[in-house]
Amino acid sequence: MDRLEQQLRFLAEIDKLKNVLRRGLVTDTLRPENSAEHSWHLAMMALMLGDHVAAPQLDLLHVVKLVLIHDLVEIDAGDTFCYDVEGNATKAAREQLAADRIFRLLPDDQAYELRALWDEFEAELTGEAKLAQALDRLQALLQNLNTGCMAWRKHGVTKAQVLDRNQKIGDALPGIWKEMRRKIDQAEEQGSFK
Amino acid sequence: MDRLEQQLRFLAEIDKLKNVLRRGLVTDTLRPENSAEHSWHLAMMALMLGDHVAAPQLDLLHVVKLVLIHDLVEIDAGDTFCYDVEGNATKAAREQLAADRIFRLLPDDQAYELRALWDEFEAELTGEAKLAQALDRLQALLQNLNTGCMAWRKHGVTKAQVLDRNQKIGDALPGIWKEMRRKIDQAEEQGSFK
Repeated sequence: MDRLEQQLRFLAEIDKLKNVLRRGLVTDTLRPENSAEHSWHLAMMALMLGDHVAAPQLDLLHVVKLVLIHDLVEIDAGDTFCYDVEGNATKAAREQLAADRIFRLLPDDQAYELRALWDEFEAELTGEAKLAQALDRLQALLQNLNTGCMAWRKHGVTKAQVLDRNQKIGDALPGIWKEMRRKIDQAEEQGSFK
Repeated sequence: MDRLEQQLRFLAEIDKLKNVLRRGLVTDTLRPENSAEHSWHLAMMALMLGDHVAAPQLDLLHVVKLVLIHDLVEIDAGDTFCYDVEGNATKAAREQLAADRIFRLLPDDQAYELRALWDEFEAELTGEAKLAQALDRLQALLQNLNTGCMAWRKHGVTKAQVLDRNQKIGDALPGIWKEMRRKIDQAEEQGSFK
């Protein structure tokens, strides 16, 4: 199979990320968000929130690459709800298998590059990966706050869980985390938590 | 309003792009694709298809920015089907109004940057914009070919229209256009065109 054909097969395969549904909702229509549009939203956040990043000199293109590819493994492994203890016990193994299959659709050099990016994201090996992880948390948090905290209410999430899950926003984006804590307190006053 | 508040309002507003539906379909579920997930797919193509680009030395981050933001105006203006003559007569005016409103939600410097990016994309002012336009065509073309050409069949599109619409792929990505012409000929043999 030639190089272009491998790339086109990969690009057709990743279309399936548009059918992987998350617990969070989309504003207005309140349907579940899918992981492809979530990844686009993350990339837009990476472009727009640069002035709040604690570590300067990060490579923006690298951050964008990380957020664009970070959920591709969900095509096989599905989205694991962050507060699902049972699901999270098997998540790593399922996602490793998925990475082995999906990235290998590409020519070897690109398969290697994407696998390295995904490993970097998962292990938070660099400043860029730490920021990408923080943005991933922040997007889900904002999505919840902007849709009446419906996902938290539905799944009986506690304030302590939300603070624990999202505290890593504070390392990469300290000013934003301060503002998010204020919004989480507001959500508590409105009875959004279990 | 402070800088972060303006940025968060913009990031909440652009969530609406996930509710703007295109004529093209998503593989497997065959539901209409939305413009946010389409933009993600374009960005992935920009990352993966670099070795086929006619003009070398393009700034990849710049291309990615262009494709991530190119459809934001559709939040107000809607998606205009490329073969809809009437809709295309009013498209530019509708999209200019949309750009005036949406980008101005941001702090002035970022509003200016995004407006300049969108103008560059629309007017195809640079090699990066020409590639972004070609990728926009290519994604829609592949999406159609990968879903049994259902959108072409449903809307009575002709082969001449598809060749005319997509020929600019040939300038930016000549090798890929050659392969796409072969696939369009195949689709014709299968009776996919009016």
